[in-house]
Amino acid sequence: MKPDNAMSPKITVELLRQLRQAMRNSKYITEPIQAYIVPSGDAHQSEYIAPCDCRREFICGFNGSAGTAIVTEQHAAMWTDGRYFLQGSQQMDNNWTLMKMGLKETPTQEDWLISVLPENSKVGVDPWIIAADQWKNMSKALTSAGHSLVAVQENLIDVIWQDRPSRPSTKLITLGLKYTGLTWQEKIAALRTKMSERKIAWFVITALDEIAWLFNLRGADIEYNPVFFAYAIVGMNTIRLFIDVKRMADPAVREHLQLDAPSAVEMTVQTAPYESVYTELQAICAALGPKDKVWISDKASCALTEVIPKARRSPIPYTPLCLAKAVKNATEIQGMKMAHIKDAVALCELFAWLEKEIPKGTVTEISAADKAEELRSQQKDFVGLSFPTISSVGPNGAIIHYRPLPETNRTLSLNEVYLIDSGAQYTDGTTDVTRTMHFGTPSAFEKECFTYVLKGHIAVSAAIFPNGTKGHLLDSFARSALWESGLDYLHGTGHGVGCFLNVHEGPCGISYKTFADEPLEAGMIVSDEPGYYEDGSFGIRLENVVLVIPAKPKYNYRNKGSLTFEPITLVPIQAKMMNTDSLTQKERHWVNEYHRQCRETVGAELERQGRKEALDWLIRETQPIA
Amino acid sequence: MKPDNAMSPKITVELLRQLRQAMRNSKYITEPIQAYIVPSGDAHQSEYIAPCDCRREFICGFNGSAGTAIVTEQHAAMWTDGRYFLQGSQQMDNNWTLMKMGLKETPTQEDWLISVLPENSKVGVDPWIIAADQWKNMSKALTSAGHSLVAVQENLIDVIWQDRPSRPSTKLITLGLKYTGLTWQEKIAALRTKMSERKIAWFVITALDEIAWLFNLRGADIEYNPVFFAYAIVGMNTIRLFIDVKRMADPAVREHLQLDAPSAVEMTVQTAPYESVYTELQAICAALGPKDKVWISDKASCALTEVIPKARRSPIPYTPLCLAKAVKNATEIQGMKMAHIKDAVALCELFAWLEKEIPKGTVTEISAADKAEELRSQQKDFVGLSFPTISSVGPNGAIIHYRPLPETNRTLSLNEVYLIDSGAQYTDGTTDVTRTMHFGTPSAFEKECFTYVLKGHIAVSAAIFPNGTKGHLLDSFARSALWESGLDYLHGTGHGVGCFLNVHEGPCGISYKTFADEPLEAGMIVSDEPGYYEDGSFGIRLENVVLVIPAKPKYNYRNKGSLTFEPITLVPIQAKMMNTDSLTQKERHWVNEYHRQCRETVGAELERQGRKEALDWLIRETQPIA
Repeated sequence: MKPDNAMSPKITVELLRQLRQAMRNSKYITEPIQAYIVPSGDAHQSEYIAPCDCRREFICGFNGSAGTAIVTEQHAAMWTDGRYFLQGSQQMDNNWTLMKMGLKETPTQEDWLISVLPENSKVGVDPWIIAADQWKNMSKALTSAGHSLVAVQENLIDVIWQDRPSRPSTKLITLGLKYTGLTWQEKIAALRTKMSERKIAWFVITALDEIAWLFNLRGADIEYNPVFFAYAIVGMNTIRLFIDVKRMADPAVREHLQLDAPSAVEMTVQTAPYESVYTELQAICAALGPKDKVWISDKASCALTEVIPKARRSPIPYTPLCLAKAVKNATEIQGMKMAHIKDAVALCELFAWLEKEIPKGTVTEISAADKAEELRSQQKDFVGLSFPTISSVGPNGAIIHYRPLPETNRTLSLNEVYLIDSGAQYTDGTTDVTRTMHFGTPSAFEKECFTYVLKGHIAVSAAIFPNGTKGHLLDSFARSALWESGLDYLHGTGHGVGCFLNVHEGPCGISYKTFADEPLEAGMIVSDEPGYYEDGSFGIRLENVVLVIPAKPKYNYRNKGSLTFEPITLVPIQAKMMNTDSLTQKERHWVNEYHRQCRETVGAELERQGRKEALDWLIRETQPIA
Repeated sequence: MKPDNAMSPKITVELLRQLRQAMRNSKYITEPIQAYIVPSGDAHQSEYIAPCDCRREFICGFNGSAGTAIVTEQHAAMWTDGRYFLQGSQQMDNNWTLMKMGLKETPTQEDWLISVLPENSKVGVDPWIIAADQWKNMSKALTSAGHSLVAVQENLIDVIWQDRPSRPSTKLITLGLKYTGLTWQEKIAALRTKMSERKIAWFVITALDEIAWLFNLRGADIEYNPVFFAYAIVGMNTIRLFIDVKRMADPAVREHLQLDAPSAVEMTVQTAPYESVYTELQAICAALGPKDKVWISDKASCALTEVIPKARRSPIPYTPLCLAKAVKNATEIQGMKMAHIKDAVALCELFAWLEKEIPKGTVTEISAADKAEELRSQQKDFVGLSFPTISSVGPNGAIIHYRPLPETNRTLSLNEVYLIDSGAQYTDGTTDVTRTMHFGTPSAFEKECFTYVLKGHIAVSAAIFPNGTKGHLLDSFARSALWESGLDYLHGTGHGVGCFLNVHEGPCGISYKTFADEPLEAGMIVSDEPGYYEDGSFGIRLENVVLVIPAKPKYNYRNKGSLTFEPITLVPIQAKMMNTDSLTQKERHWVNEYHRQCRETVGAELERQGRKEALDWLIRETQPIA
């Protein structure tokens, strides 16, 4: 475990002093700024970031995946969402105010700035790590209150960060048709078709997972996410890849991208240094024809977006690659299913092992997480974890994105609920699964809450809905049983999952917050993960990855067609935690049918791999409930 | 029935010729325009409009409440939503293309314009009848495609409309504390508190129902909506009312507004002619202090919005009056409940009468609607209907916003489903109720669909949800049972309802479309009206008006509190149409509990009014289901 995951607060007095000095230093800025915004993203607006980009964590100590820090001359505040309220309060010292997003009394960043800043203030931000749409909203709000948002070219955190790590440049993996179903040339051709339909001359690709997906390449530049630092610009006859050019020395990569024997000019990949994207895009924009339009995601960096003259920009909430990547083809679906079966094998083994070991009092959150990783790593085509394992006992389970650390590490016991949310990257797919178990006798309240969460999980998983329905319209199904008893959970219900790519991806999802989500389509893969968290006591979450498939209900209104979900995750859900009496007949049927599938599919693989103990555990745990 | 409600298509060849001539006529425009947009609203963006404002209907024949017509040199197209697909196709001749909004293949107005217009086209619109936010979106889309949106000061429909009616100026009704719970002075004071909190110097009020609510005045300028044409501008020491000044001659109005003996300068209402709002707002804006901000709804007309310098404008999606009006006070809630009891009395009488008369074969859609109005008019404080009665038999029921006309009028029979959606204005409240009945033996499919709709209705009505939940998160509850069988309905589930005001009001609602709705709060009143429509066969809709009330579930997560709904409409739901076997125990309990309330509350009033036959009918129709 890395020291930067400490749950004790980081001491920030000196760093804040240095940052405030930099905010007035004419070496970096023409005029002093009264506030400096430190977003959590990198220049690609990645959710997970490389160590060299962990600037928000560096300045405040909070290392969750989402959060924005703002430092003024007098104040320092950090905004994060419900998943991280506890973690944030534990990792920041009292120079910082934790701003709990989603609570009524919490001001927005804009409102807070307006309330604390002196008149006519300048608020600075690095234009490379703020998205164009965020810049626009922030700038508008500040301007209307008499302040201004200014781009600070030199990153002020980097200025005070003595031992900042360098940008990673890991070995690239080339993926063949067996894994991707489509060659990168086919993907480029499909993209160009969409570009010409919309009369788009150039498409600037900034999202790392889109570039990895497009070129059928993977890297390991960012922990858990098999991506690599690059930009790409695609025109109708041009393909430019901006990347550390040393990586192009690898013969496998040269062969894959046909760098030495390009077949046709329009399929020739031209590589250039990563940093040259800015000047290259300037050159492209300078040579635009009178009607040429350029596509760029409105989530791309402000810096790169601004290079394109406004009239030429065709900003899009979701790029065509994002949409194409979300709808998995048959090869990708097959791969995702295989990956989840292997993953289930590892988890069945883990749970059988835990059952044996826990009574000895020797298993901790950390050792359980390590064991899970060890078991996964024995599976074919294992690459690494898809996110940090959340292995949490009792009260730690209520910290939604908890990571066990030496100083918080609890021992698994027969008395407390155990929640494990984990996943892996395999060459054929990405997994993400959460199970909540009790190895002794759960309390009535724990069972009651588990049952509500299960009802929510089933309500989403078994939902039938018309083609064209957006995922956010399903979110309340997951909450209904909890709501009825006055309970809720402060996170979304589901996110898109990549195929040997990021475990969180757009443009679909299931959340009360997401209104810009794209409609669910057959072939999309999302998670279904309602939960309940009792602060100081326990956490419950039940997560399957599910595939959107066509449904065939009795009628077909206006020939619209219907959709539903097929669970891809096949790990038993602990019957001991269920109040089976309060399940409806439909819900009981769903549980039994799901367990039958787990037994058949994962059972066969356990048998094949000769993992007898886990097979016995699986058979016992998948007995029908009454 | 008015001739302009005809269901046969309006012949528009000559009108389109004249309009296209006007689009090139330098008398009205400096340069020819290639397209002209005719929105359905008036200068106040009212949903229901006065005859003088029915410009879209005049040009295309379609008289539904929502729709936008666009005429180019070669094409004429009209966009409307799922409620009006059938009606639109019946009322427009083949010069017009019906654009079915919400279907995937239907282009947006912007996309369609871009696809049909020659390069560098000018698209004209009357800036008084397009909202500022609509203007902005349309203008942006057109500009990005090389066209431009231009404000045409002279309305080109008015130019070709020979016998256009004049703007109404009906007698005003003053409402005392007994009906409003708050004096207009108290409402002004509360508004000013909100203005000073947000440092707003002036508030320009353009919505007619907000003006009526603020001043505790009602009018009859627009059929079904007890409003009057006016604008108001409120400052911290000024109240300006722009209205036909002749209306201020009424002594009751003078007394109510204290025009003759004003108590304090800041509560003095200054009246000015309706048309002078433009120049008065110009004068106010010219005299703004350096920090003065002006509130105006972003749904206000483009014309009036543009008067306010952009830097001074503080556009708001929902005005503080809209929000204050939506949360009913105790007096208003009491009034709404009383109005619904009286309304239920009239409907019980109607249904008892129908049961007797239908077998004679003499009752038609029109005569049933007339009877309903007659019975309502016998109730205390009846003012008029709150919207045109939808009285529809069999296939006519599938036309979602059907109005019976002599040429479509069907006879009620024992063989077809009857749907009646109706409501009234009473001095104490506004009602809106839909019941679907069969007076003979319904088919299995009719009962099946009715049962799904009932399940949806109950799922919303009985839902418990946390404080702060927006109505759109409840929409899928209403559809779930239909979706499961592959069915759906193409309209929202609920709308806000005014108190002796518009039957449709913001800012809350229950719809898959509304993402800008405000969270539901205790005291808000909305409708709950899922439906199912089988084209050519029948329509089913079940609508109650419901009050948002606090709920007291078992737990209270993070002290957020919970809400639920209390039905205000108390009219039996026909048990004959239900497949009681497929109702859950909870659903059966809800039906029986609802019917018990109907019997007790409405029964007592029927008894008091000595309406014996209706009472007998009520008692029979509210027997518990098994």
